[in-house]
Amino acid sequence: MENLVDRIAHTYKGDSGINFIDASNLPVRGEIIQILDLLFEVLFPGHTGKRSITKSNIKFVIGDVLCQIHAELSEQIERAYRYQCRIQKCEGCDCRKMAENASRHLLTQLPKIRELLKGDVGAAFAGDPAAQSHEEIVISYPCIDAIATYRIAHELYLKQVPLIPRIMSECTHSKTGIDIHPGAKIGKNFFIDHGTGVVVGETSVIGKNVRFYQGVSLIAISIPKQAQSIRGAKRHPTIEDDVTIYAEATLLGNITIGKGSIVGGNVWIGKSVPPGTTVSMAKSQSLYEHRKNNRHSKKRKNR
Amino acid sequence: MENLVDRIAHTYKGDSGINFIDASNLPVRGEIIQILDLLFEVLFPGHTGKRSITKSNIKFVIGDVLCQIHAELSEQIERAYRYQCRIQKCEGCDCRKMAENASRHLLTQLPKIRELLKGDVGAAFAGDPAAQSHEEIVISYPCIDAIATYRIAHELYLKQVPLIPRIMSECTHSKTGIDIHPGAKIGKNFFIDHGTGVVVGETSVIGKNVRFYQGVSLIAISIPKQAQSIRGAKRHPTIEDDVTIYAEATLLGNITIGKGSIVGGNVWIGKSVPPGTTVSMAKSQSLYEHRKNNRHSKKRKNR
Amino acid sequence: MENLVDRIAHTYKGDSGINFIDASNLPVRGEIIQILDLLFEVLFPGHTGKRSITKSNIKFVIGDVLCQIHAELSEQIERAYRYQCRIQKCEGCDCRKMAENASRHLLTQLPKIRELLKGDVGAAFAGDPAAQSHEEIVISYPCIDAIATYRIAHELYLKQVPLIPRIMSECTHSKTGIDIHPGAKIGKNFFIDHGTGVVVGETSVIGKNVRFYQGVSLIAISIPKQAQSIRGAKRHPTIEDDVTIYAEATLLGNITIGKGSIVGGNVWIGKSVPPGTTVSMAKSQSLYEHRKNNRHSKKRKNR
Repeated sequence: MENLVDRIAHTYKGDSGINFIDASNLPVRGEIIQILDLLFEVLFPGHTGKRSITKSNIKFVIGDVLCQIHAELSEQIERAYRYQCRIQKCEGCDCRKMAENASRHLLTQLPKIRELLKGDVGAAFAGDPAAQSHEEIVISYPCIDAIATYRIAHELYLKQVPLIPRIMSECTHSKTGIDIHPGAKIGKNFFIDHGTGVVVGETSVIGKNVRFYQGVSLIAISIPKQAQSIRGAKRHPTIEDDVTIYAEATLLGNITIGKGSIVGGNVWIGKSVPPGTTVSMAKSQSLYEHRKNNRHSKKRKNR
Repeated sequence: MENLVDRIAHTYKGDSGINFIDASNLPVRGEIIQILDLLFEVLFPGHTGKRSITKSNIKFVIGDVLCQIHAELSEQIERAYRYQCRIQKCEGCDCRKMAENASRHLLTQLPKIRELLKGDVGAAFAGDPAAQSHEEIVISYPCIDAIATYRIAHELYLKQVPLIPRIMSECTHSKTGIDIHPGAKIGKNFFIDHGTGVVVGETSVIGKNVRFYQGVSLIAISIPKQAQSIRGAKRHPTIEDDVTIYAEATLLGNITIGKGSIVGGNVWIGKSVPPGTTVSMAKSQSLYEHRKNNRHSKKRKNR
Repeated sequence: MENLVDRIAHTYKGDSGINFIDASNLPVRGEIIQILDLLFEVLFPGHTGKRSITKSNIKFVIGDVLCQIHAELSEQIERAYRYQCRIQKCEGCDCRKMAENASRHLLTQLPKIRELLKGDVGAAFAGDPAAQSHEEIVISYPCIDAIATYRIAHELYLKQVPLIPRIMSECTHSKTGIDIHPGAKIGKNFFIDHGTGVVVGETSVIGKNVRFYQGVSLIAISIPKQAQSIRGAKRHPTIEDDVTIYAEATLLGNITIGKGSIVGGNVWIGKSVPPGTTVSMAKSQSLYEHRKNNRHSKKRKNR
């Protein structure tokens, strides 16, 4: 066993990147999950059913929760900034102050985020005939978890907080199967039905009243071995207002889907379309073959 | 901070739907997850390996677990009914009694559900060459978690219990990536291989001996802004007995896939097909282009 | 209630496979999750941020963790072997010794696994313009969780440990939506972007420097009712070195995708292609229809 420890310890030498030795202050994933839970308490007060919230205690409860969030989030953000200073070998940054500013920025955006989430819940109710009530949507729909987490993480992304926005987005990705990069820009009244497999890349822009089904992907063209050189460039789609995109459609590269367009399911699209376009699989896509009654068998191309 | 609390509290006014203030008795998601765990103990006794179950103690253990389920489930269902009475402003409902009835209904269906699950596990073993044993399937296959949860939630859906069936289905959706609405009707010997991205909408009907691969979606045609007007209508596919549907196929609207049909992968299909039909991507679907040896390059359309 | 207990207990008779009565020593899923967490501490020391790891304490910490893993993993593997002996009615196996050997085998492979994971993290950084640092990838990218778990589970699969490799792979499948069977063979520098819906079947072979996007499936042709007869046969694709496969492509059966090929998104492919091939949806795949300005409406087939 001692020999094995030596062999493994040997592999730790000079491997920054997959080791975190002498780096004890990284953000802690478990803490960030707890902070998200607290933020959800403010955004949807009482939704967990665990805590009785009334008109008379609401301000005390929320005030208490906000103080807790600010303390814990500042601590985690400070760890993230310090980590970055170490990597970039910069000196003299006041990481503590930057962290408190970023945390305060997020908190002051909460009223705006609540307004946006009201619109998102309303869009889900308007768009899904299976929805029984707004409450059911908040309590159980995965898209609300994913979109609320995105709207939180996006504010920290704007403050260039390292690591934490992505940890947040991967938490909800794990829970919901919806992978929205914190850098994307998403307008109001956004609804994702079912959601599993949805991908929204870093430089995507999504307008108002947009609706996605499961498996819709806004991704970049892959340029093997040159990825780092295009870091930051606009490389994902722009979806204008009032667009609906059906299940498993893949949209590739820095294209624009014009206002009011409809993109059909399982479509793979790599160029822009003007407003009001319907894109669908060509009629010849499916081949039907009747196996029974062979004498009368026929092949038809149709849809 | 005090100012921020005021601003946030201000957004809570008049927002029923995304707030749950003065609504302390909502069902608690964490409790429902625990109830599901207990139900799984009855359906697959001993599968967690945590508790030693023997022929001599089995009746005591199961009796104990059933009493626990009934107490906790009645409590959660009562919360759900009370929530609905409040929303619908109805009076005089005996929510406690209705809750106990619904809970008892589910418990009395457990023997039937066990019979169905035996068939589902058998279908998985018969259908998956990678399966080593029935035990491996029960312990590790996500489709068993998803189908067992569906069969439980469906019984509560039939009793029109609000919120809880959907909370249950979203729990397993989060764990497995399989999204089966509690309202769907699913026959025996149902197998879903891999499972991530499967969607079965509320009014879907699935016959016996049906097999799905990952990403198969039974969804409704989207009619923006009119969703609530078609609530309750049959708007999802009917899949007859002995049908196999391959990965990522999307089936749209109130169509019927006839008995014994095979639907190929990545197909998008919006009309009914008679029994014994094979539906696949048309031969012209894929374009092959050889990039090497340019002088001899050729383009072929084939599959 | 007593009557119900009797009815349920009656369904337990003679149902091996979905009951685990008198089988108290099955592997415990919760324990296996903890063992995976400990293994990740060795593979990516300090990545959780929970524990301060320094150059001076690293050998003690790792030595301590390795001893803990060996004790707990041997115990779980012994349960798995004993379960199999019971099923196969074999006698005289020294399950304890076999378990310790399998556990020791895994531990001695950890240096090799670390080398492989360095390559995988490097491939993610090289391939994803949204990646800010190697640390971000280790801490938050789902593909690292999935690939590291696969590389661990594969070593136990090679030692023919029952149940546990699959429990491990389904743990990460649940977290990441990536379903890699422990039996697959995967070369170095493997990157999966986004990941939700990826399926890599049991007899798949993947070369070096391969990159997948979300939803890529390497699956077998389904032969209903004959699954058990083809157990063990090579029935999944072989992907040669330097291949990129885009989102939602499905590759079916024992085919070979030649070195350096590119497979486009949403493609469904069931035959081998030579090295250097580009496979994409045919140009005629998508139908564009402009709904606005009806007088000037036109239909175009294009992509």
